[in-house]
Amino acid sequence: MTGSPRLDEVIGRIEPLDGAAAVSAAAGLDRLTKPPGSLGRLEAIAVQLAGITGRADATTRPRTIVVAAADHGVAARNVSAYPSEVTRQMVANFLAGGAAISVLARLIGASLVVVDAGVAGLRPSGGREPRPAPDVRFRSLGRERGTADLSVGPAMSRAEALDAVDTGLALAADLAERRTALIAVGEMGIGNTTAAAALTAVLCGARPEVVTGTGTGLDEAGRRHKVAIVERALAVNRPDPADPLGVLAAVGGLEIAVLVGVLLGAAAARVPVVLDGFITGAAALVAAGLAPDVAGRLIAGHRSAEPGHAVALERLGRRPLLDLELRLGEGTGAALALGLLDAAVALRDGMATFETAGVAGPDAS
Amino acid sequence: MTGSPRLDEVIGRIEPLDGAAAVSAAAGLDRLTKPPGSLGRLEAIAVQLAGITGRADATTRPRTIVVAAADHGVAARNVSAYPSEVTRQMVANFLAGGAAISVLARLIGASLVVVDAGVAGLRPSGGREPRPAPDVRFRSLGRERGTADLSVGPAMSRAEALDAVDTGLALAADLAERRTALIAVGEMGIGNTTAAAALTAVLCGARPEVVTGTGTGLDEAGRRHKVAIVERALAVNRPDPADPLGVLAAVGGLEIAVLVGVLLGAAAARVPVVLDGFITGAAALVAAGLAPDVAGRLIAGHRSAEPGHAVALERLGRRPLLDLELRLGEGTGAALALGLLDAAVALRDGMATFETAGVAGPDAS
Repeated sequence: MTGSPRLDEVIGRIEPLDGAAAVSAAAGLDRLTKPPGSLGRLEAIAVQLAGITGRADATTRPRTIVVAAADHGVAARNVSAYPSEVTRQMVANFLAGGAAISVLARLIGASLVVVDAGVAGLRPSGGREPRPAPDVRFRSLGRERGTADLSVGPAMSRAEALDAVDTGLALAADLAERRTALIAVGEMGIGNTTAAAALTAVLCGARPEVVTGTGTGLDEAGRRHKVAIVERALAVNRPDPADPLGVLAAVGGLEIAVLVGVLLGAAAARVPVVLDGFITGAAALVAAGLAPDVAGRLIAGHRSAEPGHAVALERLGRRPLLDLELRLGEGTGAALALGLLDAAVALRDGMATFETAGVAGPDAS
Repeated sequence: MTGSPRLDEVIGRIEPLDGAAAVSAAAGLDRLTKPPGSLGRLEAIAVQLAGITGRADATTRPRTIVVAAADHGVAARNVSAYPSEVTRQMVANFLAGGAAISVLARLIGASLVVVDAGVAGLRPSGGREPRPAPDVRFRSLGRERGTADLSVGPAMSRAEALDAVDTGLALAADLAERRTALIAVGEMGIGNTTAAAALTAVLCGARPEVVTGTGTGLDEAGRRHKVAIVERALAVNRPDPADPLGVLAAVGGLEIAVLVGVLLGAAAARVPVVLDGFITGAAALVAAGLAPDVAGRLIAGHRSAEPGHAVALERLGRRPLLDLELRLGEGTGAALALGLLDAAVALRDGMATFETAGVAGPDAS
């Protein structure tokens, strides 16, 4: 029991994968004009999509990219190469359509939902009212600021974390109701690789040194300082790995909490989710901590350059589809991987079978 | 001097990459609203495309997939899990639009050119005249059969190899004239991983044991037999690695020879080429042996499950974009990688700059 009836109800609806649908999908792939298994991981994707959705003919359209953004109190500790106001500036860039994820969303024909989970200065009192481009949807938790500094105390109260998770649950339920076939997740938040490193250290039982990287551009001295900040966060908050929500509140972030809700809500609704990089991986660790069957419902879009990401994916049992040394976030790695999911589904549906094409199978001579 | 004036002329036109265009492309990427280098290998692709084409605004459309197919005499030696007639059946499948590469060509909006470099039974005397689907182009060398058995003598005469290379040169020149922005290459030929293993062993100085894999479905006993066949081919033919055309004739294949011509012709015309798996990698080794500047003009679409492919890519200095355990050939890995090239170009052209978006750069606080 998490303390939130809504969250408990959603967790109760998350099931193991549908084995019959997966078997049916695999059998269909073996009838296609190719040596068995020769499409490698694309075949595994088609089977996984069937297992997640319960349909051997699972589709990848329509699809939505959810980008959650928030500020982090710990950003004041020089853990990033960029100043905190870049969070707000980049959210404005998402809304205006000029960011990397904006370009990729258009390229792959995905809807883009930007969630303000606590971005300082974005709301009217701090400047102009955000005006999303016509093809972008905007949601806000209505907060004026992000988290507190996790290196001196908890980033959030448990109630604040639950509130952000609830927003994610509601968003996933809404997308499922609109028949979204697939959700890709991304994030923005200066300082959030520090929170993700702390979450990963606690939930994977790893040393901060191992899971803390250079983020978007620290040098090695900066990285060592960041490791010390993560160590201090764990010493001050003493988060209990058996209590994922407590860990999230203590050393997480508001955008991460929203994503935890999206992952859980999508899993309950049998909507496949494509993860992006390190921060979405940390959200997945929290979600899988609350409901272990979530992990099999996630597709790892890529492996980022952050060392903690590989640790998180290993724990989740997910193999990344791409390894392109991306370290941007925003959902870019997830969006790029969507093309491979589209290909897996197109091949499943569009190829001739041995029977219809008159092609001999193995050892037919 | 290769003995072919046309080939010598094409080789003479192949130049090193255009450094000025590459630098200009890199500078443009650094103005976009992202941390420098954070798009990882996508940025390297955009820079490479500029270096190859001489244009910082190089595009990826229109694009063509060239699939060359031929039979191999060595297929009679039980080196494949499939009978030789599958080559003809699969070419018919390409032409009808039911193969994996047919599906991917439609998905990514590429033209498909199928080259019959020597497929037994495909021409009228062996059955029905091939009738390509409306969106497929068909070319033929007019041969009735494939190569001789490379394990008892040369697969081809030098003149036959040069003739097939010339066909590839003419095809590349034709595509360049039609303003094809990008060529992806693939192949089909039962037995051709044996030829590719022999070529890779000779041109990379590797032992057959290291570069010979299970192809489309041999077991370990079958693979050991295949290694022995490759060893016999090298002992019988004694190919000289300093004479790439001689190696191609002795232990190559007709479809591989066509692809060598396509790679050289594309390089001379500054058209980027995306390689597929092991067989196209072997063709690239021959092409780079004839003209070393070819290598930098190639993009490795993926790393196949065949062990010799990694050896060939290492020699070519190419890092594969994808690693999806594909072992189908046909150009499927190259076609899948095209989506990443599209993304690199779309991001380069579609993202806002720090200046236009009002986003602060690193260390701006």
